[in-house]
Amino acid sequence: MDHLLSLAGPDMRAVDALIRTHMDSPVPVIPALADHLIAGSAKRLRPLLTIAAARLCGARDDACLKLAAAVEFIHTATLLHDDVVDSSQLRRGRVAAHLIWGAPASVLVGDFLFARAFELMVGAGSMSALEILARASRVISEGEVLQLTRSHDLDLSQEIYIEIIKAKTAELFAAAAEAGAVSAGASPERCRALRRFGQDLGLAFQLIDDALDYSGDAGTLGKNPGDDFREGKVTLPLLIAMQRTSASERDFWVRTIDRREQQDGDFDRARALMAETGALDETLAMALRYAETAKAAIEDTASTTWRPALQDLADFAVMRRA
Amino acid sequence: MDHLLSLAGPDMRAVDALIRTHMDSPVPVIPALADHLIAGSAKRLRPLLTIAAARLCGARDDACLKLAAAVEFIHTATLLHDDVVDSSQLRRGRVAAHLIWGAPASVLVGDFLFARAFELMVGAGSMSALEILARASRVISEGEVLQLTRSHDLDLSQEIYIEIIKAKTAELFAAAAEAGAVSAGASPERCRALRRFGQDLGLAFQLIDDALDYSGDAGTLGKNPGDDFREGKVTLPLLIAMQRTSASERDFWVRTIDRREQQDGDFDRARALMAETGALDETLAMALRYAETAKAAIEDTASTTWRPALQDLADFAVMRRA
Repeated sequence: MDHLLSLAGPDMRAVDALIRTHMDSPVPVIPALADHLIAGSAKRLRPLLTIAAARLCGARDDACLKLAAAVEFIHTATLLHDDVVDSSQLRRGRVAAHLIWGAPASVLVGDFLFARAFELMVGAGSMSALEILARASRVISEGEVLQLTRSHDLDLSQEIYIEIIKAKTAELFAAAAEAGAVSAGASPERCRALRRFGQDLGLAFQLIDDALDYSGDAGTLGKNPGDDFREGKVTLPLLIAMQRTSASERDFWVRTIDRREQQDGDFDRARALMAETGALDETLAMALRYAETAKAAIEDTASTTWRPALQDLADFAVMRRA
Repeated sequence: MDHLLSLAGPDMRAVDALIRTHMDSPVPVIPALADHLIAGSAKRLRPLLTIAAARLCGARDDACLKLAAAVEFIHTATLLHDDVVDSSQLRRGRVAAHLIWGAPASVLVGDFLFARAFELMVGAGSMSALEILARASRVISEGEVLQLTRSHDLDLSQEIYIEIIKAKTAELFAAAAEAGAVSAGASPERCRALRRFGQDLGLAFQLIDDALDYSGDAGTLGKNPGDDFREGKVTLPLLIAMQRTSASERDFWVRTIDRREQQDGDFDRARALMAETGALDETLAMALRYAETAKAAIEDTASTTWRPALQDLADFAVMRRA
């Protein structure tokens, strides 16, 4: 990923400056709360995707910088609301904002960042990019609601699960890349290719996220492993483990996931069942397949600098440990 | 207000149809929750303002219909989030959505409606209208956060209080009218006049809202009177009553508002102090002054049909009992 980070370095510093300026407000709680979350983000993957897609498509002006900052604001707004919705304790290696400033402030600062994102998009001046990111914001919320209503469902199908993560995670990756390409005036075909790249990258990214919740450790992860399990959230590794042990372990899954009555040792038992059933390996294999289709989607793109750097990003998404 | 409602009738039915179509989603909780709130709105004042401003400025096409629907969605999204933030029990005569579907669903459906609003604005095709409503959405959230952090402050000044309601309420009225005028291609001067009309109408509207919380009854109000008092929310009537009784009643205000330790009879005592100090009358007088400046802002507008109808709306805002 180093190659991409060094290529995009100057642009990303400009995006950072835009983020700083636009999260400011005369109401002091707003920049304080926003900074708590935004400063914790080391990677800024989604805005990086917007920049790389725009530059790959030959963007010479700075419209993509504003779009990239808008993408990070949309992402941060959804994280703030997610943490309230899930009552998460830890985010990006820090205590979740709602535990410091309260859930009401987190909801409202999320709204502030969401609105700021649209102000930035207006500044970028591309109605098409605005359309893509407005639709993405709506699709994300639909994915979140779908997850909320189906996430403790032991009989969730893999298809519905993929539908949920396509909406709640992959859509913003897809829109980030597509908006970058659109703002650079790329052909519809090229825009579609970058959208596919972003979408499959996002799917790979989320599947690894789901696996890390069972295999990672809090130090490198920046959040508590086992969060999904404790919330009774059905993700792909859990889904596979449950399906493969449904006869022998039905009572365990009903108690821990459906009824969320958990005891000490339950998370370790779930991890052991995951190892036995090969659920983590299969999740990893699926993530790898999405990373490969992502790379293939932009294979015939001419750029010899940005294309391989973006393809490395797909590899990074499945190799990462945090 | 009947004149305006009959003039705008066909447009408002079209806005209603747009609202119905755009609150739909394949995720069933979303239209169910959105409908609960949207169906409860009899007046639709804010979209009415967009329509009236656009038609007053000679709009002949239907761009204002989409903007009006977007304005109602922004308003509904903020209501959903407000009710979560304030833990309100009743809204628009119905049990608050978060008590039926839970706070998480209310937060996320608010996000859905907010995103849908921007999709509608993109459909309307006016970047200027989009800018106005994006900024308004941001200003509203700043007003809400300011209110959250200052609302139990016994020493809140009238200036800060007006700043809060200008942001959280009047800004959307101002933006609704201005966006209507802008989408009709009105002159900058005319757009500013309609913005001023909307802003002062919004201030009058909020002051009456604050007064009704002490003088209204649940049947006509559609929400519980005394909500503000029970939440310890400092509004203008309370502010005036507190200032005028600060020597004799300091302990009462500190206990009920600052510490929010309330007992049976406290709300009645607050009402009595309000009557004694003339706090409600003074709030009403201030609302009347804003209604007058609103009417004056559009006095020199040529239209002989829409102008008086809009001016009637300003009178309605201060005469209403719900």
